Amino acid sequence: MTSIHLGERHLGLSVEIDARLDAFFAERLTLAARYGSEYQRLWAEARAASEGGKRIRPRFVLSAFEGLGGIDRAAAVDTAVAFELLHTAFLLHDDVIDRDTVRRGRLNLSGAFAADALARGVGVQRAGLWGQAAGILAGDLLIHASQSLVARVDAPSGTRDTLLDLLDHSVFVTAAGELADVSFSVRLGEARLPDVLAMTERKTATYSFAGPLTAGAILAGAGGDILEALAEYGRLLGVAFQLGDDLLGVFGDQDVTGKSVVSDLREGKETSLIAYARATTAWERVEPLFGRHDLSAAEGRMLARFLDECGARAFVENLIDEHVARAAAVIDASDLPPVLADELRSVARSCIGRIV
Amino acid sequence: MTSIHLGERHLGLSVEIDARLDAFFAERLTLAARYGSEYQRLWAEARAASEGGKRIRPRFVLSAFEGLGGIDRAAAVDTAVAFELLHTAFLLHDDVIDRDTVRRGRLNLSGAFAADALARGVGVQRAGLWGQAAGILAGDLLIHASQSLVARVDAPSGTRDTLLDLLDHSVFVTAAGELADVSFSVRLGEARLPDVLAMTERKTATYSFAGPLTAGAILAGAGGDILEALAEYGRLLGVAFQLGDDLLGVFGDQDVTGKSVVSDLREGKETSLIAYARATTAWERVEPLFGRHDLSAAEGRMLARFLDECGARAFVENLIDEHVARAAAVIDASDLPPVLADELRSVARSCIGRIV
Repeated sequence: MTSIHLGERHLGLSVEIDARLDAFFAERLTLAARYGSEYQRLWAEARAASEGGKRIRPRFVLSAFEGLGGIDRAAAVDTAVAFELLHTAFLLHDDVIDRDTVRRGRLNLSGAFAADALARGVGVQRAGLWGQAAGILAGDLLIHASQSLVARVDAPSGTRDTLLDLLDHSVFVTAAGELADVSFSVRLGEARLPDVLAMTERKTATYSFAGPLTAGAILAGAGGDILEALAEYGRLLGVAFQLGDDLLGVFGDQDVTGKSVVSDLREGKETSLIAYARATTAWERVEPLFGRHDLSAAEGRMLARFLDECGARAFVENLIDEHVARAAAVIDASDLPPVLADELRSVARSCIGRIV
Repeated sequence: MTSIHLGERHLGLSVEIDARLDAFFAERLTLAARYGSEYQRLWAEARAASEGGKRIRPRFVLSAFEGLGGIDRAAAVDTAVAFELLHTAFLLHDDVIDRDTVRRGRLNLSGAFAADALARGVGVQRAGLWGQAAGILAGDLLIHASQSLVARVDAPSGTRDTLLDLLDHSVFVTAAGELADVSFSVRLGEARLPDVLAMTERKTATYSFAGPLTAGAILAGAGGDILEALAEYGRLLGVAFQLGDDLLGVFGDQDVTGKSVVSDLREGKETSLIAYARATTAWERVEPLFGRHDLSAAEGRMLARFLDECGARAFVENLIDEHVARAAAVIDASDLPPVLADELRSVARSCIGRIV
């Protein structure tokens, strides 16, 4: 996921969120010191894993909370941080599942643990197991911590229970999406377009967009209609956003996005582009190159051209516009306060034409 | 961990616990049906992973709760089930970390998912990744569900917060113990006896003994002295129990325990026996055989003899007796109600002489 435009006001929110995250990790690091240097390192790397992100999820929580006139700010900040910790946990486990050792241009937690073990004389295979074990345990700790933060939110028990329900739902649905994504990557059956779209909604849109927006609204005491509108908007926009990421992963300008335009294709990532192309006659040209670990930059550009010529690119661009339009229509039909409605429309518009 | 003697009364408790677990999984299975057959299978296998255990942890919760005159039984049963779900989650992730595909004599969740993928034509390596991904996700779901159950316990907010603190502590300490255990198994530094004992207390005693007993007491409204006594008893007895398991793993009667007497030795498991032997002159005879994947039964018996002759066995037996005696002394010095005190003394005695 690349950038999202949440306006100037949100810079202040990010500072507040980072301060609360810092306090969380500082407390855990102090406790961890009692359990030896490896465990301290685990927490230090978990903190590092949570850095460098754009805080999209916590900013959505606070955006909805403020926009709907929420009062108890501490509860909202804790909930915002809970979503960020959940996100970090999912990234950590996603990396273990995919056997990735690099994220955001540096060694990830598993990669750092494996590299350290190698440097201390452990063999390659065991060092890899050590890194993966550390990634699993760090993710476990953050999943638990996320729910623990929400469980302690100082709110009427009805509000807290609704929030707990939301977090339960977010975790439940995200796991379903992640399982589907892995089933595609190990080639358990064919990934058709509706399957890919359902996977995207489950794996990304639910906990990254719908969940945070709804959480902020719950804490602000919003009614059922508002919650439903935000959840629907979040699902639509989350899918649009991920589709945009899929486009950038093949057609983007690497110098601008910082994202390689061959990695998705080398990895054989089952995106909406690929699912569309598979149903066209272009597939016989795409298939021999798709998922090849040694794909060259020139072959990558050729694959991109095939995906353009067969209509996959135009199809996905239209699909994004359609999702954005539906998301905006949900906002228009809602009783959201004008300031929040404008903000969410502006976020939606920022998802259009991101390749240009 | 093998058996523990909690008396006849506990058969009734097991039925109650199983009914609540069944209800939990039935609800999740119904929800999972909306997200496809793989996800349903994930929940079905997660339920299977929770079956066949001895429910030691939930029975400790209810034992302490009843013994201390607790009233709100639903809260206690939910908390008991939370500890069982946490246990299942740890087993699932432990198996992924150790690359084990069998537990309790059948394919575990990861093994079952991998076998199914193989049968559907997926290659061996990808099938293994699929199995591990499923194991990671199922564990994530149960870690989250565990905390979620406790977060909803209908109790005064002070009681619930104390319970949440306890679960936080249990997860935090168990992860530290698991990380230490993995550091031994990948041979990151030498596992000395104090390290092995600290690891055992952290990985097993905290969430399996101290945590459940304290949780039951918290829900019964017990005071700080009682909580401290139960936590201390639990830590001591948990270590004694694990030490007994280490002995059974080498000197036990396979026909009685159902546990292989070569698997720990083949695996190169760093137990108290091995840590003791390493500091003796017997180590030069033990070392060439220890951790050999092709260790024969005869070689296993020879290794066991070395561990006996060098004094490791007697040392660990004494260590168990010492921990049991200290656990009993904690009970004697406490203000626990006589019925609960007698029960806990009896549990402690059952940890002595388990080899005979």
